[in-house]
Amino acid sequence: MVVVMEERATEAQIEKVVANLVEAGMDVHRSTGVNRTVLGVVGAHKVDAALIEVMDGVHEVLRITEPYKLASRTFKPEGTVIQIDDVRIGGDEVIVMAGPCSAENEEQVFTTAAACKKAGAKILRGGAFKPRSSPYSFQGLGEEGLRMLREAADQQNMKLVSEVMDSSQIDLVGRYSDIYQVGARNMQNFTLLRELGRTRKPVLLKRGIAATIEEWLLSAEYILAGGNTDVILCERGIRTFESYTRNTLDISAIPVIKKLSHLPIITDPSHATGKRDKVAPMARASVAAGADGIIVEVHCNPDKALSDGAQSMFPAQFDRVMAELRIIAPAIGRSICVEPVVKRGWGR
Amino acid sequence: MVVVMEERATEAQIEKVVANLVEAGMDVHRSTGVNRTVLGVVGAHKVDAALIEVMDGVHEVLRITEPYKLASRTFKPEGTVIQIDDVRIGGDEVIVMAGPCSAENEEQVFTTAAACKKAGAKILRGGAFKPRSSPYSFQGLGEEGLRMLREAADQQNMKLVSEVMDSSQIDLVGRYSDIYQVGARNMQNFTLLRELGRTRKPVLLKRGIAATIEEWLLSAEYILAGGNTDVILCERGIRTFESYTRNTLDISAIPVIKKLSHLPIITDPSHATGKRDKVAPMARASVAAGADGIIVEVHCNPDKALSDGAQSMFPAQFDRVMAELRIIAPAIGRSICVEPVVKRGWGR
Amino acid sequence: MVVVMEERATEAQIEKVVANLVEAGMDVHRSTGVNRTVLGVVGAHKVDAALIEVMDGVHEVLRITEPYKLASRTFKPEGTVIQIDDVRIGGDEVIVMAGPCSAENEEQVFTTAAACKKAGAKILRGGAFKPRSSPYSFQGLGEEGLRMLREAADQQNMKLVSEVMDSSQIDLVGRYSDIYQVGARNMQNFTLLRELGRTRKPVLLKRGIAATIEEWLLSAEYILAGGNTDVILCERGIRTFESYTRNTLDISAIPVIKKLSHLPIITDPSHATGKRDKVAPMARASVAAGADGIIVEVHCNPDKALSDGAQSMFPAQFDRVMAELRIIAPAIGRSICVEPVVKRGWGR
Amino acid sequence: MVVVMEERATEAQIEKVVANLVEAGMDVHRSTGVNRTVLGVVGAHKVDAALIEVMDGVHEVLRITEPYKLASRTFKPEGTVIQIDDVRIGGDEVIVMAGPCSAENEEQVFTTAAACKKAGAKILRGGAFKPRSSPYSFQGLGEEGLRMLREAADQQNMKLVSEVMDSSQIDLVGRYSDIYQVGARNMQNFTLLRELGRTRKPVLLKRGIAATIEEWLLSAEYILAGGNTDVILCERGIRTFESYTRNTLDISAIPVIKKLSHLPIITDPSHATGKRDKVAPMARASVAAGADGIIVEVHCNPDKALSDGAQSMFPAQFDRVMAELRIIAPAIGRSICVEPVVKRGWGR
Repeated sequence: MVVVMEERATEAQIEKVVANLVEAGMDVHRSTGVNRTVLGVVGAHKVDAALIEVMDGVHEVLRITEPYKLASRTFKPEGTVIQIDDVRIGGDEVIVMAGPCSAENEEQVFTTAAACKKAGAKILRGGAFKPRSSPYSFQGLGEEGLRMLREAADQQNMKLVSEVMDSSQIDLVGRYSDIYQVGARNMQNFTLLRELGRTRKPVLLKRGIAATIEEWLLSAEYILAGGNTDVILCERGIRTFESYTRNTLDISAIPVIKKLSHLPIITDPSHATGKRDKVAPMARASVAAGADGIIVEVHCNPDKALSDGAQSMFPAQFDRVMAELRIIAPAIGRSICVEPVVKRGWGR
Repeated sequence: MVVVMEERATEAQIEKVVANLVEAGMDVHRSTGVNRTVLGVVGAHKVDAALIEVMDGVHEVLRITEPYKLASRTFKPEGTVIQIDDVRIGGDEVIVMAGPCSAENEEQVFTTAAACKKAGAKILRGGAFKPRSSPYSFQGLGEEGLRMLREAADQQNMKLVSEVMDSSQIDLVGRYSDIYQVGARNMQNFTLLRELGRTRKPVLLKRGIAATIEEWLLSAEYILAGGNTDVILCERGIRTFESYTRNTLDISAIPVIKKLSHLPIITDPSHATGKRDKVAPMARASVAAGADGIIVEVHCNPDKALSDGAQSMFPAQFDRVMAELRIIAPAIGRSICVEPVVKRGWGR
Repeated sequence: MVVVMEERATEAQIEKVVANLVEAGMDVHRSTGVNRTVLGVVGAHKVDAALIEVMDGVHEVLRITEPYKLASRTFKPEGTVIQIDDVRIGGDEVIVMAGPCSAENEEQVFTTAAACKKAGAKILRGGAFKPRSSPYSFQGLGEEGLRMLREAADQQNMKLVSEVMDSSQIDLVGRYSDIYQVGARNMQNFTLLRELGRTRKPVLLKRGIAATIEEWLLSAEYILAGGNTDVILCERGIRTFESYTRNTLDISAIPVIKKLSHLPIITDPSHATGKRDKVAPMARASVAAGADGIIVEVHCNPDKALSDGAQSMFPAQFDRVMAELRIIAPAIGRSICVEPVVKRGWGR
Repeated sequence: MVVVMEERATEAQIEKVVANLVEAGMDVHRSTGVNRTVLGVVGAHKVDAALIEVMDGVHEVLRITEPYKLASRTFKPEGTVIQIDDVRIGGDEVIVMAGPCSAENEEQVFTTAAACKKAGAKILRGGAFKPRSSPYSFQGLGEEGLRMLREAADQQNMKLVSEVMDSSQIDLVGRYSDIYQVGARNMQNFTLLRELGRTRKPVLLKRGIAATIEEWLLSAEYILAGGNTDVILCERGIRTFESYTRNTLDISAIPVIKKLSHLPIITDPSHATGKRDKVAPMARASVAAGADGIIVEVHCNPDKALSDGAQSMFPAQFDRVMAELRIIAPAIGRSICVEPVVKRGWGR
């Protein structure tokens, strides 16, 4: 780290700072300019920068290393590709995850999954445990929902991603789901992250609505530090002053993450915007900006959905956006699932 | 709720919205103006407003009831006073909670607790489980820390508040602490909130750094709905674009909460500012604005603290701010702990 | 507007509110529900809603009309197309504006303009008066810069857009430029807006970094109300807590504006991100989301630029992004300037 | 400045950066650590840090000097006291500025001014030119309003502060007003700031709703650089995600400014909160946190105000808050205007 002294710092103040740093085992390079003294400090990880910053005569302390390691591109220059059987996340193909907000009943789950698969989605999304702001809202079907989602995914030869809200649910969700989803509100639930680091299934880690990119990568670091190398980052909108959309999808996080980290990044335009007619433009923008995938809500009958109906697309809307994405992906050298050939005997 | 139709809405669109609402069991009062039609809807809680809002011809849907009930002042016009033996939170006295960020060792805990008590604090604060952004930071002493904190609180005849990070820690923390603290990152950990609603100890609920006041009260509602009526709200700074201070302490939340809710509200100027020399001004501002208390970090030797040293006050700084608060509190008809009678006769 | 009374509002309080509204010339429809009384008010534009909101017994006042009229799509359902000779902004073609941040010297202006034109830009951008946060930074060449930019635009058969910082500069800038640019910091410089409303040249109105979409449209309204119907909205990033990029380009503003207003909308990915390597992804995302155009900074030698060099693209980078945009635009039924036929035979 | 190279930076990349810096006339101190190379650069003001930051191999560039000089406390360690006859802003006394949002008519101006003076305000506030978001709102009385305000101020032996919206209004406003007010929307109207730097009357500079403290001080620098040394900073609320209050008054800006700058700082709780009943708590909080003054809206009949009525206090409310402030100010060693002795013949 670099310690910048105040212009009026006295020699005694400077020496006290140097002494504190040396005592903590640092090497200090002192450089005195016309106006002020700057201290270059090697081995900074053992010292609390904030503590130095409040010492008398210190102007500010500048950190020169990121606090995350395993998540950084410096640590692993080539991008991580996460493979689940034949589905590869982070490779040339843009991966689409789609499905209902929450499992409600068999017909809804099966019909929606079939529509998603037909349009080109490779991973089924759907919740069984729902984090809701109000204690009076629908909270999900629990294990019964997970069972339906698994069965639908198997029927359609899709993978399944589903949310885990608490460390006590890890075993249960893991029995049904291929990917653990960590919601935005849990991005800094460190107990949960640490436990997920001990599993060996991929984790889709949503960005908290007020999390900086650095905090997000630090939360990924909790999982990676436990030995689980398969983390998918998911940008889902940050909270800003603008209230017309629910949140502001931070599309620029895509190229930023691509530079700072080797982990794949996808976006969730459904939760970011909260409105069905804004999902398609933001899905297109995400792919154009270089996202490795998107996760969207589709519902066979959104008007009757028990949760998030307003942001769920009709199957026909989803078909259309998939067709648009197939035009856009090649602009950046990516492909997207070609419409699966559905062989059903003669005539089709 | 009130449904505002677009100016260009057709009669068919209006009728479809009315039909949907009636089908859901609502009473609809239609009112047609020069430019547009407005629908007054009674019984709105059974309908998802967002779903109506995406219907064709709808301009917007306006909610006319708060989504929280038990936390609202409408439900309980007089303010809640939480009593723990002789300590009353929410009454005429402004309550001060003080202590180290985390328990580090016996000497640190005991010395700091004695200094806090001497200056007028009635409740000892201190963490044994620490939520840290980085997996590589000090994570707390666990039960051993709780034991030390309890012993120090008893020695000084103080109450104890300590953080619980996960529903699995509730029993353990409850054995030592008088008040459960829920950190900002856990404000929407609904599993934890629901479990705390089943306990019968007061809960200090910090506001998430990006939580609206409504979301904060909804999180309180989770606890209240479980039957635990003793929730203390704690404003600890919100995330804004300004980066000079760690967060921006939203002092205006104090009068807003006083209007919307009956629950006591305190502030945490230490975490909000992150810098020791900003704690005193913000503590004074909080009391002047009508806070029911403050929670601050004090450390017998902040320069050597294992966490949050930069924002921890020296005991002498704490003495001074307590003296200032004793002048300010009467301006709004409140008292603050009178300086404990220090016997200077025999025996001391 | 709709006035929602508190649940505990007394009859006297309700009657006083009604009386105030009637006195102001409103029609009031009173509707009494189980829990509370709601007043539907017709003719709301003559009453200050905030004044009603602070009356005793009032819970809140909900506005049901947008405060802007001429800028709204209700007022003009079909989109506005702004035509400058053969250049049409808001039509099927996505329009690209490119050029240096500021005019520095003839060689820089002419070389850069030629490169922009060759890649497909139809409008040259460039500043002669620069709003700079610091009084010590380069402030632009003034009229001499305008002269160079005009000459370069004419040479290349391009239109010119250039910033006007103050109402006193309108005449001067108007003598050289085809489009007036109003910077983000001036979005609420109402004197300037009003004066521009009296001109008959198109105005490119940048969104303020903390302006809501509603405030932005109200600023457009100032210009439209003066009789100038040609306003181009330009999203250039909003200020959020995330500091990795300079600002956060709010891509979702594109579909939102398309719904609320008939005015064309473009984006400025150079100022939003502040970093050259983030411009291309955000330009692609903008076009994919439905923007009517983009405005980007290109410099023949960005490393030596007097301002904004770090966010200026090299000509070769600009060529590449134009090629990518030509693939993306058709995905949403738009075209983009086809690479101009470069005649290599006689006569050129 | 300090240039931090990437861990994987090549020797060639490092040398190119060094060469660029040396070419620009800098002294470069190279320091090679285990993981990365760091360059200390002296004379940084002549180089654009952003340009270095986008060079290959550069991780980030850290600035070690503030970009403002004349506004910094380093430049002038003792605080600035601005004196207008016997009124001293920035001294021991907390100065209160009060009055109507805008001048409406003689009776309103005179009655309100008398009430403000009686309660202890020393400076009358009031606008004649009003910046309004909507072109359809009341825009002020112009010179006629200034004349009334001046007459009222003289009657009551008060000083006058009034807003100037555009450089063309400087002469006119200066003929009537003792202090120029620059509104939040004009904080970066650099033409206006530069012109005010040439006047010799104090300028009250409001913070823009999305301005960082550094940008605010840079705007003050524009005025100071012109030779006008009398700038009063005014915090009036920043824009955040919380929408319950109009803006969030950043009370912590008070101690921050006190550390960074020698200029006096006051707050405007009326505009920050937008609601009358929130003004008193925030006024108290401001004084408790160390503000040099407050500026508040008072109206003899707020229910009939042409602008900002909802946030204007009744005279009786203003009396009460003044009484509260008189208790609070001594807590931090300040005084506040004692209630003026009203001589009414013998015996009093």
